[in-house]
Amino acid sequence: MPSDVVRLTPRLADRSTWSADGCTMAAALSAVGTRGSMLCLREAFYGTRRFEEFVARTGFTEAVVAARLKDLVGAGLLIREPYREPGQRVRHEYVLTESGHDLLPALVGLMQWGDRWLTADGTGPIGLRHADDDGGCGEPVRAELRCAAGHQVTVTDVEAFPQRGRVAHRRA
Amino acid sequence: MPSDVVRLTPRLADRSTWSADGCTMAAALSAVGTRGSMLCLREAFYGTRRFEEFVARTGFTEAVVAARLKDLVGAGLLIREPYREPGQRVRHEYVLTESGHDLLPALVGLMQWGDRWLTADGTGPIGLRHADDDGGCGEPVRAELRCAAGHQVTVTDVEAFPQRGRVAHRRA
Repeated sequence: MPSDVVRLTPRLADRSTWSADGCTMAAALSAVGTRGSMLCLREAFYGTRRFEEFVARTGFTEAVVAARLKDLVGAGLLIREPYREPGQRVRHEYVLTESGHDLLPALVGLMQWGDRWLTADGTGPIGLRHADDDGGCGEPVRAELRCAAGHQVTVTDVEAFPQRGRVAHRRA
Repeated sequence: MPSDVVRLTPRLADRSTWSADGCTMAAALSAVGTRGSMLCLREAFYGTRRFEEFVARTGFTEAVVAARLKDLVGAGLLIREPYREPGQRVRHEYVLTESGHDLLPALVGLMQWGDRWLTADGTGPIGLRHADDDGGCGEPVRAELRCAAGHQVTVTDVEAFPQRGRVAHRRA
């Protein structure tokens, strides 16, 4: 194994030749990592679109929801779309973008961790399942790690490596 | 579809009969959702164990690292283990617990989102692959959603439902 590859713990190699500077996990957390942002996103996945409904469902104040929705629009996770109820002025609703949809594995990963480790019996209040129409099977859904060949992998099977010298900061 | 089931967006159903109060994603974010905690965890996955190395690799101050490691120990994600270098006093290093390991899909989900959406070419500085010894294949690793029957599912195939009346708050 070359010296700049680390096997994720518990098997590990020489980390001294590289650091995770520029890591996109850090950048992702800066973009969406506040609790308020994540919970607004969760509601968007449940189908919430309108400002008042975000307020009612998250329990945050209007000011907090307005700030977090603005952040999420700025980060490209939600877009504002105009709508108009009969006899009312034009208002906007918030709809997940492709980028927003792409965050679902991370959110499901957090939820299943919470279900397993923060509840008495390992079952959380909200379940996820493969919808049983359109060819789905109704079985429970989880976030898991797979390689491109389709193997399910665990922490002991994964290795990390710097894939671009220009971004990964080499100390040596 | 019963009225308390919601298909995740873009197909959605009646959300008015339940809210996500008690959602374990919110609880998970409270436990581990600060950027500092997540980055210390990331380093623990890369094999970092010692306080000085967490400081050097995260770029946080000693005070911040000490606070975040204490939080992570308190939340059960890391444990402190004693070690002693020859001629030195006993010190402690920080090791991931099973609970800590179980957060990997969420962290990988965040990293791959950042790789795709926050870099110019969709490639982040750190790659993950299925280690190519012990039967692994070297292929890239991703976090993805699968049902218990092994089907890969996307946002449009997942439905959410309240699985325990005692925790999911019903409004009706």
